[in-house]
Amino acid sequence: MTDGQERLIAEAERRLGPKAVVTGMADIEPWLTDWRGRLHGASPAIIAPASTEEVAEVVRLAAEHRVPLVPQGGNTGMSGGATPPTDGSALLLSMRRMNRIRSVSAENRLAVAEAGVVLEALHHAAETVGMRFPLTLGSRGSCTIGGLASTNAGGTQVLKFGTMRSLVAGVEAVLPDGSIHNGLSGLKKDNRGYSLDQLLIGAEGTIGVITAVALRLVPAVAARAVAWAGVASPTHALDLLRFIQSQTDSLEGFELVREDCLQLVVKHVPGSRSPLRGSHPWHVLVETTTAKAALDVGGQLERLLAEALKAGIIADAALAANEAQADAFWKLRDSISEAERAEGQTLAHDVSVAVADMPKFLVEASEQVERAFPGVTATGFGHLGDGNIHFHVRAGSHAAPDWYEREGGEITRFVDDLVTAAGGSISAEHGIGQLKRGEFARLASPARVHALRAIKQALDPLGIMNPGKLIP
Amino acid sequence: MTDGQERLIAEAERRLGPKAVVTGMADIEPWLTDWRGRLHGASPAIIAPASTEEVAEVVRLAAEHRVPLVPQGGNTGMSGGATPPTDGSALLLSMRRMNRIRSVSAENRLAVAEAGVVLEALHHAAETVGMRFPLTLGSRGSCTIGGLASTNAGGTQVLKFGTMRSLVAGVEAVLPDGSIHNGLSGLKKDNRGYSLDQLLIGAEGTIGVITAVALRLVPAVAARAVAWAGVASPTHALDLLRFIQSQTDSLEGFELVREDCLQLVVKHVPGSRSPLRGSHPWHVLVETTTAKAALDVGGQLERLLAEALKAGIIADAALAANEAQADAFWKLRDSISEAERAEGQTLAHDVSVAVADMPKFLVEASEQVERAFPGVTATGFGHLGDGNIHFHVRAGSHAAPDWYEREGGEITRFVDDLVTAAGGSISAEHGIGQLKRGEFARLASPARVHALRAIKQALDPLGIMNPGKLIP
Repeated sequence: MTDGQERLIAEAERRLGPKAVVTGMADIEPWLTDWRGRLHGASPAIIAPASTEEVAEVVRLAAEHRVPLVPQGGNTGMSGGATPPTDGSALLLSMRRMNRIRSVSAENRLAVAEAGVVLEALHHAAETVGMRFPLTLGSRGSCTIGGLASTNAGGTQVLKFGTMRSLVAGVEAVLPDGSIHNGLSGLKKDNRGYSLDQLLIGAEGTIGVITAVALRLVPAVAARAVAWAGVASPTHALDLLRFIQSQTDSLEGFELVREDCLQLVVKHVPGSRSPLRGSHPWHVLVETTTAKAALDVGGQLERLLAEALKAGIIADAALAANEAQADAFWKLRDSISEAERAEGQTLAHDVSVAVADMPKFLVEASEQVERAFPGVTATGFGHLGDGNIHFHVRAGSHAAPDWYEREGGEITRFVDDLVTAAGGSISAEHGIGQLKRGEFARLASPARVHALRAIKQALDPLGIMNPGKLIP
Repeated sequence: MTDGQERLIAEAERRLGPKAVVTGMADIEPWLTDWRGRLHGASPAIIAPASTEEVAEVVRLAAEHRVPLVPQGGNTGMSGGATPPTDGSALLLSMRRMNRIRSVSAENRLAVAEAGVVLEALHHAAETVGMRFPLTLGSRGSCTIGGLASTNAGGTQVLKFGTMRSLVAGVEAVLPDGSIHNGLSGLKKDNRGYSLDQLLIGAEGTIGVITAVALRLVPAVAARAVAWAGVASPTHALDLLRFIQSQTDSLEGFELVREDCLQLVVKHVPGSRSPLRGSHPWHVLVETTTAKAALDVGGQLERLLAEALKAGIIADAALAANEAQADAFWKLRDSISEAERAEGQTLAHDVSVAVADMPKFLVEASEQVERAFPGVTATGFGHLGDGNIHFHVRAGSHAAPDWYEREGGEITRFVDDLVTAAGGSISAEHGIGQLKRGEFARLASPARVHALRAIKQALDPLGIMNPGKLIP
């Protein structure tokens, strides 16, 4: 432990109370490894303030003693953004004690949640007033509002409601000098210069710690319809997406799945079976929802799929007969990563290109990767309507046990080059963190690299906010 | 003219051609005064590049010769953000020659327009493909896309579609070092660090020049319904807003008008008359639209207003019987500023508070202003659903001709104090420019002031981008 760390910890304990400081190694240990279990850091303490003022106090102490802080929410990030550096130079700043929902209002369609509120808790709070916070993702039982905002999280409902960036109505944050930015007033229009709220969203804690967020709520779902359709190609899937969107505003979920991914799920996940009788090269999971009980979304979706079938856009479709079947359809989609892991080593890429370009990209990139790295299987699945595909490369059955470590880097660079050539993003929703920092530095435009470095240096000149993350 | 200006002009003429440089005083003159005619600047030349690369070239020359640039679009800003400083130290950077619509696609629901494209031209381009760009405002025949993005413009359709910030899918800009940021790829999801697009929106040209914008399109309007309702108070108006919003997604316009404003319009604008027979303390203009021809928005709005009447939310209502009448209703709303000017001196404030707080604020602030400044009339009208009211203070009939100059500052400070105490914004949609810079500096939080200055200094260390604007 450095002298600065020791002084900060002592001061924090004195001012914030003993609950705010954790130094027992067994208590710290679980928070030193990232969610995927690939990155391991070190830190002598977790500081856990209970209020915005306490966060400001900790940040001021960190500045005074030149001790870097690594903000952490549910520690469910995909790119290691919340894992401390290995040299133990930083302290973890846990937001878990800031877990109050300050307000939730159906009338204003707003909730204000502190950074440490777990997503699922916000979902429930919204439900109690007949509303809904529409963003959701697999880790909803652990991920926190602060982390979701700091990483501009996405998920499966982005098609209709956008990412966190669209759902955040205001941000409260402690800036690296210990001052408090309060953007929670819930103003719908405010043109007083650069949007600090928008700058902090997706900044991964590198220029401030988000302490609370005002979030837009939408009316609760009154009914939903879920269907599974078989299509000949990603182009057909996109045609289906556009056809449905041209006919209704109810579309909320649209997930693309390749046949081999579905077969892996059927093989590895007990109780799962294909919704359609025959086999199809590609599949689509469609969900429509309505907030108005009067609208028959099931009948509407059935009609639209019948028209799509007649028009040759889809080859077959099945409408979920009940909620259990709807959940089963979604489970097929949500189990792909798990099934792939069960099958063998998988290298994941979270990429985006323009929606219109995705079908072509998906087919061509898969072919190119499989040609360049004989034996692998390259496939994509996910949020076609957002132009965001999880592009996974699976090791062949004869791959060495260290395939991931040995070939992963080269394959990832190959994929990232294809994405960049297509004008896309090497991180659609998972952020940069530490995992993608090298690739980001290699591929980002000089203008972007310069601007990011300049902003970081300007707002965090001492480099105490989440060092080693995001900035190329 | 300074040596640096002379060298820049000569170089620009040599590299960009004679069309790109305007030095005739008669040609420059109209661009030296702001839209309201209150601010006057000076500049020895207008530089008008025709491409992004030419803009980059001009910015590099400006950096080399230390000559500040004032980016200008349609010169329709409300806060003097595009008016050069009075000392003639800056050159105008006109975007008017960058007026191509690079693409417009119904399929992708996107258009890419260069900064100098006039809003109305974009409206027409969207119409040709059966789509619509939903942002609109009074100056649509002159204002440009670059200026709209740089000021995060609002207008009358924000309730449904948001400000420019929500409608911009990507920004291309030249940064102060002459590098080009290209955010036009149309990615719906991209988490590669701080959003430069969002930072540039509303930055008023102080950290870069927006050269082109990717804009979201929505389906064209198939039908609209417009109604005028009389209500007892702003609280009743808000109740009506929430009632309609709870029943339909079709609500697009919701404008609040006080009786005295309506009477001024009737008095000063030829051919205008009140839509309702009796008199009401407050009025509301409601517009609903649909993109689907099948939906009877007129019948729906009529039904909703009948229910609101029965529930005592409104006192009376009239549905526009045809398009001409709908236009006439809107003209009443749009003519308020003009009618006020005809009546006498008016001091305008463009303020916002949280939507739920607006009715109380509006009534109380009017009373407080009228008490503090005997003889004046304080009133508000505008975008109630956005919490954004144009809060106008009219001079009494016995006011001195120099009332505006003599008392304006004090009244504005009084209003701005009330807005700040209510957690609101002193600039909801008009920006800061040079007009509101003093008040912004006086009232902004230290955290905001520090962050804005740090970002400006980091990205524009030479201070060549629109100096004297926005930054407190």
